[in-house]
Amino acid sequence: MGKCINHPDRETSFMCMKHNIYLCEECLKCRDPEIHCKFRSSCPIWFMEKRGGKGIDEVPSAEKKIEYKILFKPDNKEISIPEGATLLDAALAADVPLNASCNGKGSCGKCKLVLESGSGKSADTPLLTREEKANNYVLACQTTVHSDITVSIPEETLAKKLKIAGMGKEVTARMQGLVQEISPMLQNISLELTPPTLDDSISDLDRLTRGLSKSGCDVSRMSIDLKVMRELAVAMRDENWKVTASVTRKSCSTEIVRVVPGNGQERSLGLAVDIGTTSIVVYLVDMADGSILAATSAHNRQAACGDDVINRIVCAEKDGVKKLSRMGLATINGLINEAIDSADVKRDRIDNVVLSGNTTMLHLLLQIEPRNIRREPYIPSVSAFPILKAGNVGLKVNPGAAVFVMPGPASYVGGDIVAGLIYTGFHREAPMTLFIDVGTNGEIVLGNKDWLMTASCSAGPAFEGGGVRWGMRAEEGAIEKIVIDPKTFIPSLSVVGDSLPRGICGSGMIDLISEMLKAGIIQQNGKFKADASHPRMTHDGDEKAYILAFANETSVDKDILFMESDIDNIIRSKGAVYAGFKVLLNQAGFDFSMVEQMIITGGFGQYLDLDKAVSIGLLPDIDRDKFTYLGNSSIAGAYMALLSEKYRNEALEISNRMTYIDFSSNNQFMDEFTSALFLPHTNMEDFPSMKGKF
Amino acid sequence: MGKCINHPDRETSFMCMKHNIYLCEECLKCRDPEIHCKFRSSCPIWFMEKRGGKGIDEVPSAEKKIEYKILFKPDNKEISIPEGATLLDAALAADVPLNASCNGKGSCGKCKLVLESGSGKSADTPLLTREEKANNYVLACQTTVHSDITVSIPEETLAKKLKIAGMGKEVTARMQGLVQEISPMLQNISLELTPPTLDDSISDLDRLTRGLSKSGCDVSRMSIDLKVMRELAVAMRDENWKVTASVTRKSCSTEIVRVVPGNGQERSLGLAVDIGTTSIVVYLVDMADGSILAATSAHNRQAACGDDVINRIVCAEKDGVKKLSRMGLATINGLINEAIDSADVKRDRIDNVVLSGNTTMLHLLLQIEPRNIRREPYIPSVSAFPILKAGNVGLKVNPGAAVFVMPGPASYVGGDIVAGLIYTGFHREAPMTLFIDVGTNGEIVLGNKDWLMTASCSAGPAFEGGGVRWGMRAEEGAIEKIVIDPKTFIPSLSVVGDSLPRGICGSGMIDLISEMLKAGIIQQNGKFKADASHPRMTHDGDEKAYILAFANETSVDKDILFMESDIDNIIRSKGAVYAGFKVLLNQAGFDFSMVEQMIITGGFGQYLDLDKAVSIGLLPDIDRDKFTYLGNSSIAGAYMALLSEKYRNEALEISNRMTYIDFSSNNQFMDEFTSALFLPHTNMEDFPSMKGKF
Repeated sequence: MGKCINHPDRETSFMCMKHNIYLCEECLKCRDPEIHCKFRSSCPIWFMEKRGGKGIDEVPSAEKKIEYKILFKPDNKEISIPEGATLLDAALAADVPLNASCNGKGSCGKCKLVLESGSGKSADTPLLTREEKANNYVLACQTTVHSDITVSIPEETLAKKLKIAGMGKEVTARMQGLVQEISPMLQNISLELTPPTLDDSISDLDRLTRGLSKSGCDVSRMSIDLKVMRELAVAMRDENWKVTASVTRKSCSTEIVRVVPGNGQERSLGLAVDIGTTSIVVYLVDMADGSILAATSAHNRQAACGDDVINRIVCAEKDGVKKLSRMGLATINGLINEAIDSADVKRDRIDNVVLSGNTTMLHLLLQIEPRNIRREPYIPSVSAFPILKAGNVGLKVNPGAAVFVMPGPASYVGGDIVAGLIYTGFHREAPMTLFIDVGTNGEIVLGNKDWLMTASCSAGPAFEGGGVRWGMRAEEGAIEKIVIDPKTFIPSLSVVGDSLPRGICGSGMIDLISEMLKAGIIQQNGKFKADASHPRMTHDGDEKAYILAFANETSVDKDILFMESDIDNIIRSKGAVYAGFKVLLNQAGFDFSMVEQMIITGGFGQYLDLDKAVSIGLLPDIDRDKFTYLGNSSIAGAYMALLSEKYRNEALEISNRMTYIDFSSNNQFMDEFTSALFLPHTNMEDFPSMKGKF
Repeated sequence: MGKCINHPDRETSFMCMKHNIYLCEECLKCRDPEIHCKFRSSCPIWFMEKRGGKGIDEVPSAEKKIEYKILFKPDNKEISIPEGATLLDAALAADVPLNASCNGKGSCGKCKLVLESGSGKSADTPLLTREEKANNYVLACQTTVHSDITVSIPEETLAKKLKIAGMGKEVTARMQGLVQEISPMLQNISLELTPPTLDDSISDLDRLTRGLSKSGCDVSRMSIDLKVMRELAVAMRDENWKVTASVTRKSCSTEIVRVVPGNGQERSLGLAVDIGTTSIVVYLVDMADGSILAATSAHNRQAACGDDVINRIVCAEKDGVKKLSRMGLATINGLINEAIDSADVKRDRIDNVVLSGNTTMLHLLLQIEPRNIRREPYIPSVSAFPILKAGNVGLKVNPGAAVFVMPGPASYVGGDIVAGLIYTGFHREAPMTLFIDVGTNGEIVLGNKDWLMTASCSAGPAFEGGGVRWGMRAEEGAIEKIVIDPKTFIPSLSVVGDSLPRGICGSGMIDLISEMLKAGIIQQNGKFKADASHPRMTHDGDEKAYILAFANETSVDKDILFMESDIDNIIRSKGAVYAGFKVLLNQAGFDFSMVEQMIITGGFGQYLDLDKAVSIGLLPDIDRDKFTYLGNSSIAGAYMALLSEKYRNEALEISNRMTYIDFSSNNQFMDEFTSALFLPHTNMEDFPSMKGKF
């Protein structure tokens, strides 16, 4: 039991599993309050559950207890952990990458392990099949440790190497073409100073400043740290008055951040970093010509604390924001190591960094208090950041490197979207544009060079594999494309990495629903109409399911099923995005016919079949030529800002001029959402090209 | 043997004991190269000695050895120290305040101890009398430890409480009267912010900035540290959007240095600190009205590393600048403790600090490399400092407190002189003024509102007690005023603290020489003419001496003598200062008759008898009404800058417009110095009022 977040006088047993907050019945107005909620009308699909006496914050933390050893196979990582801790705690401590989408709440069923020896106490869960339980499968987060234990990680639980979106030659060429002039924040200026004499006995700092001024540097608002002043005398004399000063240009001043002896012109490097909730991408860039020396990416290690930003914030509130920051930094610093190894360059030559990401990711990384992002009225601590120093942030590069953090206009429209605009450039042009970046949240921007409006709708975790039994991210083994034979209902599958399938990713789900609708396996309301006796149809308990792949066709030796509830979740996700389009257009007095181009960005869009996305009502039924897919626009925008002051200034300017529309206080959104809970839509006038096809 | 600092190819055995540098014969051009040198012509009285094989830097540092216990009486402080360390090392480690003017070189003879038990090895020294040696006197710096030892500290070795110059009511009133408007660097601004709503959902930082802007704060160039951003969300909500922001105004920007919940207006405090080479003075000031809540002072603990700036720099080169910084900070933080205890205020309310001091003292305190200050062409690392944070400096006040460091135009004309000008104010007015601050160095400023010239001449340690057998600082027991009966040669003595005498301070020496000259005990060349058989006359070896006090009239039970070599040293000191006046005037095309006022500042000036100072040729023979004594002008100027932005800006402006004349490359200075080695001067035309008096 807990107190309703909106009505603190009311006790309630309903808890939103995404927000980790309690809600009273009145606040739960959608059609199935046992499962869904309407805490924010923009977030109609958040999962609800009845809870017992203990709120999330009341769970006692582990005390000092007997420690047990946990061995993880197949990598044989071992860790000691106190009695009573969970296997998920052990995996986190051992740095074993597990899927744990729901942050240990036991609701996603992703963190499956096989107990090989030793004993744990597992809470009963409906998320494991009878067969799995018989084969010693447990959920890591639901199993506490009471002896030394050996576990193996089954195929489907391993977090594998990501496919990275938007890093092709075309994107790189477009990106580089957009940078006309390279103007880094931190510049290394080599000087040959006149040695002092009795007649020219100004201080070392004044001599340096005079030299900088002569070389064209604006020294009127120059600042310098005590640390740099302390080492100045030695640095300036060490190579006979030849020095190289690193100077950072900030918005209101310039700062001398480093002075080293000598004039050797080593090349200066930069990093563009996109901190996604799911994955992190790092570009290592030669600042002289903008060439990309290495591009690396990895899962954000914070994923062990949950799939979405809300769970990450909850985790930060429980364990401290430093923990999440460490996890993010560990991922980024690992990628930096990979990049400098592959390009064979020196770490301390990295002098400029741009960080892009959503508001929560940037708060967590910088250890800035994130708790108000998830609480009405959803306030970030900081939206525009001053230029920081890499050493203070914790990045393993030159400690004085200048770090530009992409500004973001709101808690749910962050720096990644601003970076996206920088790359797409539609805010510099006349055509009326609708921009969408779909992940767990769908961020939408509408506008052109004259004005920009933006909003965020909670698409839910379905497109990224959450809340869908065999859902997964677009990793190796994910089914990404499907064609179903309308006669036999037999699907042809494309799998990421051309391996045997082990799950289905977002674009696969859209294909699947579109194909099932076309083949008549499901109805427009998302319910199965195919004969339950068909060999491709099965059920789990009362719930019907379509067999996407039989056990012997998979790498997990189990049937991969698509449940009726999975379809329901996808419909809610696509409905929220479509309702977002409608309401934002409406606020501006527009409709879809007035949209001149539609830009889709983000990893999710890469494998998207436009026609099929329109056919299920995710995208509007407009001229297909108006659609453009532009890959990971966040990293591309970060790259551009890394090289060019013009784009850094533009980012601040865009962030300031975007009007943010909050859907959580918008009744029209709820109406539009309800209308969109149909395939493709209750109002078929919106989808003329689909008319009569079902 | 060592290499000449000017000619590294030449080996030499002459070492300057003040500079700790070797000089070849060519560099030793003054009349008595065995004793004196002319390394810089502005410094003709530095003591030289022939050295054996070991240079100062070649002395091996103590290795890990057996440790022995040293007990210091009368305070019973005990310390363990490795075998072979000196008793001075032990005193330093035990924080026992000893006089050690020469920084352990064995040349000043001040660090006398009495061995009570245990055995040490003492190098033979001419600085202890046969009687002293018989009574187990040793020099702490010349005695190494080879067993457990008990020593007692004789009366004359103890460093006692200072008399503090320039803190009277008159000075305070003048100082406070000069501050018209109080404008601190760091201001605490209390705000009552509008809580955020869905329609007003800007970030916390933007909300704070908006609030600051509304309250009249210029936010266009506002910066903020990552640390403050991290705590912003909590601080702003903790007392329901009532917050107090601490904002520091810098020259090129403003910075939010702290945000705390609540609006309680606690009083803000400030510190003015004068870091003298000998003593440190701290004023604790109420920033609301400028009232001085406490004034404390103490010996600079760095004195254990030598009396003058050169020895301090040498010590920093040997042991690291951090050691010297720690000693200075320990003194200041101790004084801060005293001040906050006596005023009963909270440490963290101290938000503003001004540090004044000479260039070396400021470098050492801030741990900025000082080595080039003592090497031609005498370059400081930094002469104008940005506003620092107290936490970074190491001051035990609010860590975000703004610290203004007094700028100084040259290595030997520092922030203390600029502070002095701020207080005297002659640079704002028309009268042609000669300003002098005499200590180990004599800093001279000439000018008015139109122009300012400055120079420094090395007065040597004599006025502060160095190089004079019974010389001491103006502490308790110092003879400060003397009148000699011309018939009996019997002196009447005034002693600081009205106690029995234990030595003679600078003003006493000037009185003494003037009186001896008048009474005919000495000639104008400084040699004794009194009959050697007179009861007041004696000798030590070949050297004649005047008996200033018989053993039974003293607190040290020994005759206090004034030697012929003491007179010689004083003549050199006064000669250097007078030559400084002459040359600086000459450079400007002036002579003494055109000087409209003469301002004397510094502790030394406080007890000075003007007529006697003129009679020995230290001060020029001008109308006595033109002289003004203005006490410790460095602390007064620091106080004014603490309260007023106008004076902080003025300090930077003065420092920039002072023209520094370097005497070390000036032949005229040497000629003037030689002419001034006479009482009062070889050219009696310069001293018309003295004509015919001897």
